[in-house]
Amino acid sequence: MASEPNPIAERLIAAGAIEFGEFTLASGQKSPYYIDIKTAMTDPALLGEIARAVATREPFEMVAGVAVGGVPLAVATALVSGRRFAIVRSQVKDHGKANPVIGDVRGRQVLLVEDVTTSGGSALYGVDELRRAGARVDCVVTVVDREGGAEERLASRGVRLVPLVRAQELLNR
Amino acid sequence: MASEPNPIAERLIAAGAIEFGEFTLASGQKSPYYIDIKTAMTDPALLGEIARAVATREPFEMVAGVAVGGVPLAVATALVSGRRFAIVRSQVKDHGKANPVIGDVRGRQVLLVEDVTTSGGSALYGVDELRRAGARVDCVVTVVDREGGAEERLASRGVRLVPLVRAQELLNR
Repeated sequence: MASEPNPIAERLIAAGAIEFGEFTLASGQKSPYYIDIKTAMTDPALLGEIARAVATREPFEMVAGVAVGGVPLAVATALVSGRRFAIVRSQVKDHGKANPVIGDVRGRQVLLVEDVTTSGGSALYGVDELRRAGARVDCVVTVVDREGGAEERLASRGVRLVPLVRAQELLNR
Repeated sequence: MASEPNPIAERLIAAGAIEFGEFTLASGQKSPYYIDIKTAMTDPALLGEIARAVATREPFEMVAGVAVGGVPLAVATALVSGRRFAIVRSQVKDHGKANPVIGDVRGRQVLLVEDVTTSGGSALYGVDELRRAGARVDCVVTVVDREGGAEERLASRGVRLVPLVRAQELLNR
């Protein structure tokens, strides 16, 4: 049963960011689709379009992305909405060397954006660091959710996951 | 002898990104000014203004930034110019794990952007990785050059450094 076409999904497929076939993921799991959204989002027209979808989806005072994957969308969402952004530095790098959060998030309602979520590890890390820096975070918007547990894990921290595209929609096309 | 006021310098000072006084840098060196441009550039109005200055300064087909500091300006320059961006992953993280360059730069004339240059280590690393990925790189635009050797080191690789603001201009105000 095909659902209503999702304009963001169609746009990503047209840009070559989502391919259908038989793929083996880094984890060894088989997948009927493959997502490389990072390269597609280096196109400013596509990035701007997704940023406008994010900016109008949920209320926020500031937008944040985890380095490096979430940063382009966070910056673009800031530019289209006129609101400030923050960057959560990546886990491996820079710890101890600098504040993990660039940007003043204290007391702000911060929307965390991700390009792709699977198990939600990066999003959870981002939520924790933003809260440690004094932000209020209750929502993560992801461009594509692979539906690999991110929603449940974020819910256990009191955070809603809002996907622009769900894996299920890609499978039901 | 005061020079003509530099509008980008004045804007950064007004935003609190450049402070005057007596500061001790991480290196132990004393400095009569202190720059924290990363936090100031989380303001989309300031970031957009700087991106427009970058986009009109030198010709380019694509713009690139080294993670994580150079990424917001690269993304903003892409959005204001309608041209694609690339990201050079940071040196510490991700090597061996993934391609060091996100975005297809092969055969393209790529402008590398930096927020602050001192000795130019990050810029040199970015130029080398972009060239290894097949890009043509002959110019780096930096928002503030602290004049700590970056210009000479880049010149030795055949790359021009174009600063929007030079340290000397800050000292002569």
